[in-house]
Amino acid sequence: MSGQPPRKRSIEESSRLALEYSRFYGGKIEIAPKVPVRDLSDFSIWYTPGVAAVSKAIQANTDLSFEYTARWNKIAVVTDGSRVLGLGDVGPEASMAVMEGKGLIYKYLGGVDAFPISLSAHTADEIIQTTKYLEPSFGGINLEDIASPKCFQILDTLRTQMQIPVWHDDQQGTAGVTLAALLNALKITGRKVRGSRIVLFGAGAANIATARLLEVAGADPGDLILVDSKGILYAERDDVDDLKLKHKWKYEIALRTNKDRVSGNLAQALKGADALVAASTPGPDLIKKEWVREMNTNSIAFLLANPIPEMWPKDAEEAGAKITATGLSDFPNQVNNSLLFPSMFRGVLDVRAKTITDEMVIVAAEELAKYSEEKGLHKDYITPTMTEWEVYPRVAAAVGEKAIQQGLARKNMTKDELVTRASENIVRSRNMLSSLISAKLVPMPPEI
Amino acid sequence: MSGQPPRKRSIEESSRLALEYSRFYGGKIEIAPKVPVRDLSDFSIWYTPGVAAVSKAIQANTDLSFEYTARWNKIAVVTDGSRVLGLGDVGPEASMAVMEGKGLIYKYLGGVDAFPISLSAHTADEIIQTTKYLEPSFGGINLEDIASPKCFQILDTLRTQMQIPVWHDDQQGTAGVTLAALLNALKITGRKVRGSRIVLFGAGAANIATARLLEVAGADPGDLILVDSKGILYAERDDVDDLKLKHKWKYEIALRTNKDRVSGNLAQALKGADALVAASTPGPDLIKKEWVREMNTNSIAFLLANPIPEMWPKDAEEAGAKITATGLSDFPNQVNNSLLFPSMFRGVLDVRAKTITDEMVIVAAEELAKYSEEKGLHKDYITPTMTEWEVYPRVAAAVGEKAIQQGLARKNMTKDELVTRASENIVRSRNMLSSLISAKLVPMPPEI
Repeated sequence: MSGQPPRKRSIEESSRLALEYSRFYGGKIEIAPKVPVRDLSDFSIWYTPGVAAVSKAIQANTDLSFEYTARWNKIAVVTDGSRVLGLGDVGPEASMAVMEGKGLIYKYLGGVDAFPISLSAHTADEIIQTTKYLEPSFGGINLEDIASPKCFQILDTLRTQMQIPVWHDDQQGTAGVTLAALLNALKITGRKVRGSRIVLFGAGAANIATARLLEVAGADPGDLILVDSKGILYAERDDVDDLKLKHKWKYEIALRTNKDRVSGNLAQALKGADALVAASTPGPDLIKKEWVREMNTNSIAFLLANPIPEMWPKDAEEAGAKITATGLSDFPNQVNNSLLFPSMFRGVLDVRAKTITDEMVIVAAEELAKYSEEKGLHKDYITPTMTEWEVYPRVAAAVGEKAIQQGLARKNMTKDELVTRASENIVRSRNMLSSLISAKLVPMPPEI
Repeated sequence: MSGQPPRKRSIEESSRLALEYSRFYGGKIEIAPKVPVRDLSDFSIWYTPGVAAVSKAIQANTDLSFEYTARWNKIAVVTDGSRVLGLGDVGPEASMAVMEGKGLIYKYLGGVDAFPISLSAHTADEIIQTTKYLEPSFGGINLEDIASPKCFQILDTLRTQMQIPVWHDDQQGTAGVTLAALLNALKITGRKVRGSRIVLFGAGAANIATARLLEVAGADPGDLILVDSKGILYAERDDVDDLKLKHKWKYEIALRTNKDRVSGNLAQALKGADALVAASTPGPDLIKKEWVREMNTNSIAFLLANPIPEMWPKDAEEAGAKITATGLSDFPNQVNNSLLFPSMFRGVLDVRAKTITDEMVIVAAEELAKYSEEKGLHKDYITPTMTEWEVYPRVAAAVGEKAIQQGLARKNMTKDELVTRASENIVRSRNMLSSLISAKLVPMPPEI
């Protein structure tokens, strides 16, 4: 395989360590007290009889649950384990290993208390109903690794029916970080969202959400071309009536996109395209160099499949792509949801937002893009890296500000207050882990 | 009011501090990382790509979720907020303040990670279904503060349908600690469970569960007399047919108890009784001295209503009670669920038990009783206090051992191993809080 770079750790090595360490640590997150117990009489404050006064106050005004309980900082990471990473339907028990990882990242990068909840529910209706029942306990919901197309129905329904933000990271998260990187790639190559011909390869949760978000961000939907396992999507394709019944989200996309009614496969789609966003299945050689050669000059190729991109970036570049990006940390330009979801929820939690609008996702993407632009864009730096800590509070504050502007926040704060509060929460989380490590309550991993 | 003792803190004081401190701390528990992040490349182990290997291993054998994820130490504290403390149906948001307190106690006394989940579900069926969906994420379920009689249907159904322990603390927890104290009170007064005439005043979750547990522990059900708001319960009471339809648990108790068909009120029930277990509504003067005078000599009076007992213990003693107990820490002999639920779950989690049987509750009660007996029983010491730390691992080990004996454990351990493991987990939790306090991540409360 040409173009494969050296990894810090091979997949095999990461897998081996993940198994050994998971057994050693017995999971990745736990509950910690956040109040002192000076002596056991303090339980008369934290529990009965004192706590009754707190319950009564919240009963009289349920919004006080954001003041008096941990709800202000708490979300549920909800899955049924039906579409976990590239593994497919592994089931809820198996999905928990991933959900705990998500919880760890939420805490470490966003200071957010994310409770992983893997459900044995299966249908969209069951997942919707169960998630709605969780509402009083949480300030937000992160849906995760739920199969398409039910994930669309679940997200769309919950967004309208719940009074706390609902986010499906495989849709909005991926769409948001993709948009951020794309904004800068377009900038470097002298393009704008509007007027660019963008091919989306793969029509799962990620790319359907990306197409929808691009449209809100100003793209002409007619300039977008989606390609799924049956080829290019267009309004007259044989299976479109079938899609209307079985996958209305893809059906609606089919009606709006591809105004030139291009048909065929990815090869045909890429002819004269400005950008490719591939979010399909692991490569490396799914996409051929000669197809990329047919794109416009200075083309953009995002190759986002995990753990192996649809084609190696070097191959895309040899075929004329000016800018490439992947989902991996081994290459420059990692399109990485971890840049977005922790700060997205930091932002919405800090203002106690009632929902996450597309506009809030777009300002988050714009803030990510702007951060990199300020540091100096070049072809290998179109998006921040995870270690650029300053970006998280900035994104959180941008999101919080937009929620306030849109009248969707329960709490008003200035931009400066938002940045400060987000920073404090995030720094505290990292300090918490350092303290637990120093105290040997979190030991270093064993030699394996 | 006669007999009221000085409190360390008045209820008013505890309430005021609870409100102020809840706002200051914003809740009582949070998520902590329990793995190190040496640098961000560690996320390739905790998250993608390495975590996929862990998911695949669990998919192949779901029992490995107890090895590779935090499930081995994790329970859900589930409520709908329909019967919170003495407050009644305060709703799920308001109940969270109490559930977080429970989570704090679980961690601090039992080393258990208890996730509070307050549901907006209402009916028994909704709560049953939702709780079942949570099974893959947890090693156990603590039902809490759910109104009677639906709490009986929920517990009985879930105990048979789930493969993890399900516990309703207001039933089994209260019944277990009551039994423990009663065993010692009977011992001191030269009685046994079998042959003692025991009056249960109040027929809610607690006393119905206590009656059921007493029967399994050897009591002749005919010697038990329950008294509810309509008076003494017996098989021919006017409303018994109605109970059959609306409250089958109370109906079944009515058929089995009170073999002498005593009728009337508490006054009549107490004539010639050996012991009174009151778990009804807050007093202090619900029970009259002259009624207690009609009990047998050296009688026993447990006055368990919170936050004020049904009568002051001093009054009961003046009326001839040899031994009294309450639910409060202000008096000797506190019948306190916190002595049981943390170690009950410590025990069942450590052996990965599939359920909690009545026999497991009884060995826990016997271990609590034995602990006090070894220290030296007297009328003011029939049950351990919360600060007698050694009792928790002992109870945990007794429970774990019984689960193994009954063939209900997924994991085999010796009694010594059980004690050691329980102790380590509990000590670690207390060290965790000390470390967080030392690092000022958990600050001392403000001066109010």
